[in-house]
Amino acid sequence: MASSLKPPEVPMELHAVNQEKLLNSLRQNLNETSRPLHGFVFLQAILFFLYTSIFGGEEQNRYCTDHTELFRQESYFAYLFGVREPGFYGAIDIATGKSILFAPRLPSEYAVWLGTIKPLSFIQETYKVSMVHYTDEIVGVLHDQYKGSGKPLLFLLHGLNTDSDRFSKPADFKGIEKFKTELNMLHPVLSECRVLKSDLELALIQFANDISSEAHVEVMRNTKVGMKEYQLESMFLHHTYMYGGCRHCSYTCICATGENSAVLHYGHAAAPNERTFEDGDMALLDMGAEYNFYGSDITCSFPVNGKFTNDQKLIYNAVLEAHNAVINAMKPGVSWVDMHKNVEDMMVERLGAVFMPHGLGHFLGIDTHDTGGYPKGAERPKEPGLKSLRTSRELCEGMVITVEPGCYFIDALLVPAMENAKTSKFFNREVIGRFKDFGGVRIESDVLVTSNGSKNMTNVPRETGEIEAVMAGAPWPLNKKI
Amino acid sequence: MASSLKPPEVPMELHAVNQEKLLNSLRQNLNETSRPLHGFVFLQAILFFLYTSIFGGEEQNRYCTDHTELFRQESYFAYLFGVREPGFYGAIDIATGKSILFAPRLPSEYAVWLGTIKPLSFIQETYKVSMVHYTDEIVGVLHDQYKGSGKPLLFLLHGLNTDSDRFSKPADFKGIEKFKTELNMLHPVLSECRVLKSDLELALIQFANDISSEAHVEVMRNTKVGMKEYQLESMFLHHTYMYGGCRHCSYTCICATGENSAVLHYGHAAAPNERTFEDGDMALLDMGAEYNFYGSDITCSFPVNGKFTNDQKLIYNAVLEAHNAVINAMKPGVSWVDMHKNVEDMMVERLGAVFMPHGLGHFLGIDTHDTGGYPKGAERPKEPGLKSLRTSRELCEGMVITVEPGCYFIDALLVPAMENAKTSKFFNREVIGRFKDFGGVRIESDVLVTSNGSKNMTNVPRETGEIEAVMAGAPWPLNKKI
Repeated sequence: MASSLKPPEVPMELHAVNQEKLLNSLRQNLNETSRPLHGFVFLQAILFFLYTSIFGGEEQNRYCTDHTELFRQESYFAYLFGVREPGFYGAIDIATGKSILFAPRLPSEYAVWLGTIKPLSFIQETYKVSMVHYTDEIVGVLHDQYKGSGKPLLFLLHGLNTDSDRFSKPADFKGIEKFKTELNMLHPVLSECRVLKSDLELALIQFANDISSEAHVEVMRNTKVGMKEYQLESMFLHHTYMYGGCRHCSYTCICATGENSAVLHYGHAAAPNERTFEDGDMALLDMGAEYNFYGSDITCSFPVNGKFTNDQKLIYNAVLEAHNAVINAMKPGVSWVDMHKNVEDMMVERLGAVFMPHGLGHFLGIDTHDTGGYPKGAERPKEPGLKSLRTSRELCEGMVITVEPGCYFIDALLVPAMENAKTSKFFNREVIGRFKDFGGVRIESDVLVTSNGSKNMTNVPRETGEIEAVMAGAPWPLNKKI
Repeated sequence: MASSLKPPEVPMELHAVNQEKLLNSLRQNLNETSRPLHGFVFLQAILFFLYTSIFGGEEQNRYCTDHTELFRQESYFAYLFGVREPGFYGAIDIATGKSILFAPRLPSEYAVWLGTIKPLSFIQETYKVSMVHYTDEIVGVLHDQYKGSGKPLLFLLHGLNTDSDRFSKPADFKGIEKFKTELNMLHPVLSECRVLKSDLELALIQFANDISSEAHVEVMRNTKVGMKEYQLESMFLHHTYMYGGCRHCSYTCICATGENSAVLHYGHAAAPNERTFEDGDMALLDMGAEYNFYGSDITCSFPVNGKFTNDQKLIYNAVLEAHNAVINAMKPGVSWVDMHKNVEDMMVERLGAVFMPHGLGHFLGIDTHDTGGYPKGAERPKEPGLKSLRTSRELCEGMVITVEPGCYFIDALLVPAMENAKTSKFFNREVIGRFKDFGGVRIESDVLVTSNGSKNMTNVPRETGEIEAVMAGAPWPLNKKI
């Protein structure tokens, strides 16, 4: 099969809408604190990776070599401007709403090695901003545009990412001392804007889901006993790039089989999807493509030989029941902590953290673990079952959140829990013994909270019968057959 | 087609041989300068990327998020130890030849999220070193092992990479002040060791070439007018990973068609292989997979519709003739600068730097632009045609070097040269005009210098007739058909 999908055009209005939302929110905030509606939102596309040192700016090669990794734009910058090239700065005038991009002035060698040097008018047309200037013109342009009194005020991005526990780095440039800067307002406001997705954003997340769902089905159908885990990864990457134009994934593919499926973040360099899988193994494949910055995050679990055993069905259906129950219960006003607790109860009474040491799910968007999980003031729960939750918020219309219950047999957690006087009584050693090398099952979908419920954006076989049919060659969706 | 190849086992003797070579060279150096044969070669696997912050050490996420990129070991460290996990230190005792790895002490949560915590004995067995300890034991272990007098001496890696113009960062750890350190000897000696490849290294470079050659043929055969450039990249990546187990490429794929083929390093984020190519275009595909750290670097140029026009043949054959002439002339003692000059002469008399602004080729190994191009004291040529050369050395048996002549029609170079009073007379405006949108042709093979000549490690269709036959469906090599 090739694909029934085609990469959609990306409307630059997407970013204008995002800018508008930020402006409204900032202005409201300034009004409430009786501050003037002047100043610029000011962001730097921090150069995590940039070509070679001759083009200046912050840059990152592999160690001391001239090997450069593929650049991927910083997410806040991508949200507001959609710019995919490195080296830019961006500003939004709070008074007028004008958006301004500052592009790097490229040396003439650039044209020989890296491509046509695009005129500023081309950049303006591509990204649909009000003005484009060079990065060495920031001071002059912003002073000209500023209509307030005194030094122009820059709202810079500075705040904590609650998933990484790291701070974003505020923009910096030559001449910044000619401005007043404000570090506290932009980060929480902009992070909150990213929580509720616009229709244009949802269309991209939906496409990332569509192509990734299709790729998961393709992988499922081509999984054969005796293959290597990385071959499943390769098929997924190929399908999403070849037919979906997705050059990046949202995260490193987790292609775990057998007992590797009990390693939650398997697949990295020290555990690199290289096992040869065997008859009787379960596979847990957690893979999602990114399209124009917006991601997907999908997990399918299935027997590599295409046929569930009774024990595999037992665990799988328990997880599926939890997955479906959560999606059915989701609607605005529901507490995510309650959802997580319900799943723990369904999985194994009071022992959820042993069998499911991760949280039930996380916001999804331009980042896989998207912003806004714990806004300022929100406390992270401390209980063992809840401390890994990436958000404790009530659901609102427009949130996209992953629903990913799992059940894992992890020696490092089971052995201590079974030896602990307080918890040992809950375990049936005989049954646990039977599942010693089982690994784990995770079922993960990307779900949009709607006005009165939820919509599952992921479309892959979930019922054991559906999985077995697709692995035996049936088309997906199954009813196409009729 | 699937593949006729299978990823080979990697013998850890590879690294023992590399260590032995370094030891011999270092001891000779110490002898010549009448210094004692004591001290440790000491390297740090600098953590360019490491999982999440909870596991400590230097680490690099994407901006402020918890998104982590796939770790790839630093190349000098990979050369000596073959370790693929991050967070290690490695030492080699110059007196005894003992090799010692220092592994990070992983916290118990590692087992839940990232995988089984391997005992030291497992690491020792995997990497075949003399001893393994934890990184917090460096001071004690090295003091115990040291048989010289005074503070133990550490030879650290510090020196210039002449391709990136960046310095390698010497190892650092808590307690380093309890050692004497030497910064000047290790880098030139170790860089020079990497220039001449052992048979075990050659076997890996050969496999990277075999699977990449096969993938190039597969891509060529499936190229159809109307596709997107990135679809060619996707097919290449898939073939080399699916059948060759190559998770990394040596560099970002350059899939340039039409006039993009005149952009030497096309394919990066700001010029991302996304053009839809048309009937009549040439494609220039520069793609190479990496297998167990060792790379390949191959370029094929062909018409996307499978049939060369006369003009395409004219340029292509001029480049091919240069490519073949160089390979035929290569043997120990030959000057690489002379080779480059010959190609310039063949291409267009005295105007080489306009039509071929890059150097003829570079060393290839664990880095795509491998070490040793300009050892201490060697001067980089200053002439326009030669200044881009990545080495000016005489060839020696055991070097692997790319041979990559090209001919490009680059407006940014042609227009000034045609306007310049000194050079304008060399150009036939009518002919040049005909090639305005041609783009460029590059033909690149990886060539081993043997005792009395050279061996081309790359095996792809090169003659225009071969290319046309393969694109029409013939098997490769062609003679298989008979």
